[in-house]
Amino acid sequence: MDSYPSILLENAVRQVNSLPGIGQRTALRLVLNLLRRSDADVEAFTGAISRLKKEVRYCSCCHNLSDSDVCPICASHHRDHQTICVVENVQDVLSIENTGQYAGVYHVLGGVISPMDGVGPKDIEIDSLVERIEKEQVKEVILALPTTMEGDTTNFYIYRRVAQYLEPPYALRITQIARGVAVGNELEYTDEITLGRSIVNRLDFKA
Amino acid sequence: MDSYPSILLENAVRQVNSLPGIGQRTALRLVLNLLRRSDADVEAFTGAISRLKKEVRYCSCCHNLSDSDVCPICASHHRDHQTICVVENVQDVLSIENTGQYAGVYHVLGGVISPMDGVGPKDIEIDSLVERIEKEQVKEVILALPTTMEGDTTNFYIYRRVAQYLEPPYALRITQIARGVAVGNELEYTDEITLGRSIVNRLDFKA
Repeated sequence: MDSYPSILLENAVRQVNSLPGIGQRTALRLVLNLLRRSDADVEAFTGAISRLKKEVRYCSCCHNLSDSDVCPICASHHRDHQTICVVENVQDVLSIENTGQYAGVYHVLGGVISPMDGVGPKDIEIDSLVERIEKEQVKEVILALPTTMEGDTTNFYIYRRVAQYLEPPYALRITQIARGVAVGNELEYTDEITLGRSIVNRLDFKA
Repeated sequence: MDSYPSILLENAVRQVNSLPGIGQRTALRLVLNLLRRSDADVEAFTGAISRLKKEVRYCSCCHNLSDSDVCPICASHHRDHQTICVVENVQDVLSIENTGQYAGVYHVLGGVISPMDGVGPKDIEIDSLVERIEKEQVKEVILALPTTMEGDTTNFYIYRRVAQYLEPPYALRITQIARGVAVGNELEYTDEITLGRSIVNRLDFKA
């Protein structure tokens, strides 16, 4: 498709096409959908994106996205500030929040250590995590990073950096989220690594 | 997902989520992708959409999208202006252009007659089509509307409106694009209506 009747249309389609997972046909469909809307609606669309880019900040404590200096979770008195869940990115915070099962706070690394991609410990928010653990008398750090080589490397690096706080007089605990057969999934369709790990990490049955 | 850490993020996600076929998770992924780009890149993204909405025009002749009063196809001296292909929308023009098989011009109706949706002949560009046929000594009108009840109704309505030009001294010809088994498709997987029509409308074999 390179015979667009309008350069304006072509530019808009090219921009939307630059988004991940949006092909050229889909981009055209989305652009024509926007074009059918009112001026005010298109203004609201582009305005919301512009304002987000210009005005959004990162929480000075957990590095999650925030409208102000400190995000609502870090500012809340209802959260347990001595439990920190370490996640790779903003989506992970949303996913855990949606479970409604977590009352602690977060620390968003903004990536994982990946020498292949040139991402070292200094490129993600590990120093600020260690600082928080030192200053805020944190009792538990929950590692919720992806189970990839990079995630494991990052877990191990964090563990080493904070290992001193595991000994008295400190009482830090480092945990990681449970990996196992997803609730509702059948064993025969579960991959071997997951199933194997769910047997090794079995729990006492509670009736 | 309603626990966004930022109203700005929530607004941007809601706007992107309003696009057809883009769910909330995908919207979040796209917005976070935009957020990782430079200010200039985000400006280019929103700017391309804003400019399209503000500056794009409709060709005064064929009603395709255009940067100027007359679109490149209608302005071209290399096209056969006595053959008009009638299509429902802008995407259809692009699809036919991409075949490289058509040297005539187009007429974009901007919809099809659909009493159920309150779309009558006056709501789409039929009057302007009839005017073009009268004024420009058109020799052939190719109907390329969808094979739906609405498409058929629109075909029939156009036929009736221009039927007078089929008789001498005029020499208008009304055709429709061939429907049949798609090239490369196997007969056993072709739906019965298409296969039936491809037998009824069989052509002389050319060796």
